[in-house]
Amino acid sequence: MDTHVFTIETGHRRGVFDLTGEVVRFAAGKGDGLLNVFVPHATAGVAVIETGAGSDDDLMDAIDAILPRDDRRYRHRHGSPGHGADHVLPGIIAPSIVVPVIDGRPALGTWQSVVLADPNEDNPVRTVRLSFLHQT
Amino acid sequence: MDTHVFTIETGHRRGVFDLTGEVVRFAAGKGDGLLNVFVPHATAGVAVIETGAGSDDDLMDAIDAILPRDDRRYRHRHGSPGHGADHVLPGIIAPSIVVPVIDGRPALGTWQSVVLADPNEDNPVRTVRLSFLHQT
Amino acid sequence: MDTHVFTIETGHRRGVFDLTGEVVRFAAGKGDGLLNVFVPHATAGVAVIETGAGSDDDLMDAIDAILPRDDRRYRHRHGSPGHGADHVLPGIIAPSIVVPVIDGRPALGTWQSVVLADPNEDNPVRTVRLSFLHQT
Repeated sequence: MDTHVFTIETGHRRGVFDLTGEVVRFAAGKGDGLLNVFVPHATAGVAVIETGAGSDDDLMDAIDAILPRDDRRYRHRHGSPGHGADHVLPGIIAPSIVVPVIDGRPALGTWQSVVLADPNEDNPVRTVRLSFLHQT
Repeated sequence: MDTHVFTIETGHRRGVFDLTGEVVRFAAGKGDGLLNVFVPHATAGVAVIETGAGSDDDLMDAIDAILPRDDRRYRHRHGSPGHGADHVLPGIIAPSIVVPVIDGRPALGTWQSVVLADPNEDNPVRTVRLSFLHQT
Repeated sequence: MDTHVFTIETGHRRGVFDLTGEVVRFAAGKGDGLLNVFVPHATAGVAVIETGAGSDDDLMDAIDAILPRDDRRYRHRHGSPGHGADHVLPGIIAPSIVVPVIDGRPALGTWQSVVLADPNEDNPVRTVRLSFLHQT
C-alpha cells in the first residue's frame, strides 16, 4: 500500500486546517483507487467541507455548541480548559475518511475540501497519514 | 477500480433519500470487497440508518436541533434560509462511508439502509459515486 | 478479502465497548492495507477515541445531550425508552470506520482505541465485521 505520513503545524490555534493540497499531491499519478485520510490523535477529526467561505469557522462553532467547553461536564478534565470536550470530538467528527481517486485526482466536488478539525490549542503539530489502495 | 456515478432527484424536498437499491445493484456479482459511497457535495452527507419507520425524519429533526437554521449564527449565510447550517452538516454526517461487500451483497444488517442526508432544498439533483475495491 | 465476524457481549449495559484487541489480533501478520470496522446494527456506531480516562462515558453523555431520550421527540418510539434516540445515533456516529494497517498493526495513535458506541440496553449481543484489503 502506498502510504505517506506528514505533519501540519497548527500552532496554538483552534480550527479547521485544509489538507486538500497534500491529498491532491499524494493522489497525483496514482490512477483509480480509494484514499484514506487518518489522523492518529484522540482530540482531532477529519472532515470534508467547504473552506474559505465561513463554514470552517461555523463548524468549530457548532462543535463548541454541541460539546460545551465547560469542564465540569466531563469526567476527563485534566489539562487546558475544554480538554474534556476535545476528547469527545472524534466521536462526532471521526479521525478517518475515505475519498475516491479517479485518474490520479481526488473525486471531490467543486466546493469540497479535506480538512483537519482540531479544537485543541495544546498540540502545535499534528500528524496525518494518507493511504491509497488501487485495483490491480 | 469499479466506479459508478449516478444522480438522484431529490426535488426541492429536504430529507433522507434511500440509496440502498443502487448500492445493491452496483455490488451484485462483484464478490468480496469494500464499497465506498461518496457524495461530491458540500451540503449533504451519507449515513447508514433504518428507513421507513420514522428514523429518517427523526435524523433530520436531530440535525435541525444540532444545527439550528437561524442564519444569524453562521458566517456563511448567503442563499436560502438555513444554508449556513447546510454547509456544516457534512462535518457531522460525512459525505463518505464504506460498506463491506460479501459475495456480491452489501453486508448490511436487517435494519440498515444506505441513505443520502440532504438538508438543502435548493439542489433538486444530487450526484453519488459508488466505488468498489476487491482483493485480487 | 480477509473478513472476520465476531460478537461482543454488551449485556444490558449502555456504553462504549473497546474493540481494539480484536482489531489488533485480526490485523496481525497481514502487512499493509485498509481495515474496515463495520457493525450491522441500526442502533450502534463505531468510533475511534481514547478509552479508560473518562472520555468513553463523556461520549455517551454527549450523545444523550445531542439526542435526548424523550421519546415524544421521535416518530420511531416503540420499545424501551430512548429507542427513538438509539435509531438516530448511527447518523451521528456511523457504523463504519476505516483504519490503516502498517506491517500488521493498526496505525492508531497512542491514545486511540476502536470502540463500539452502543446506547441500547435491549440487545445483549452485538456483531462486528472486520474486513481487510491490501495492495497486491
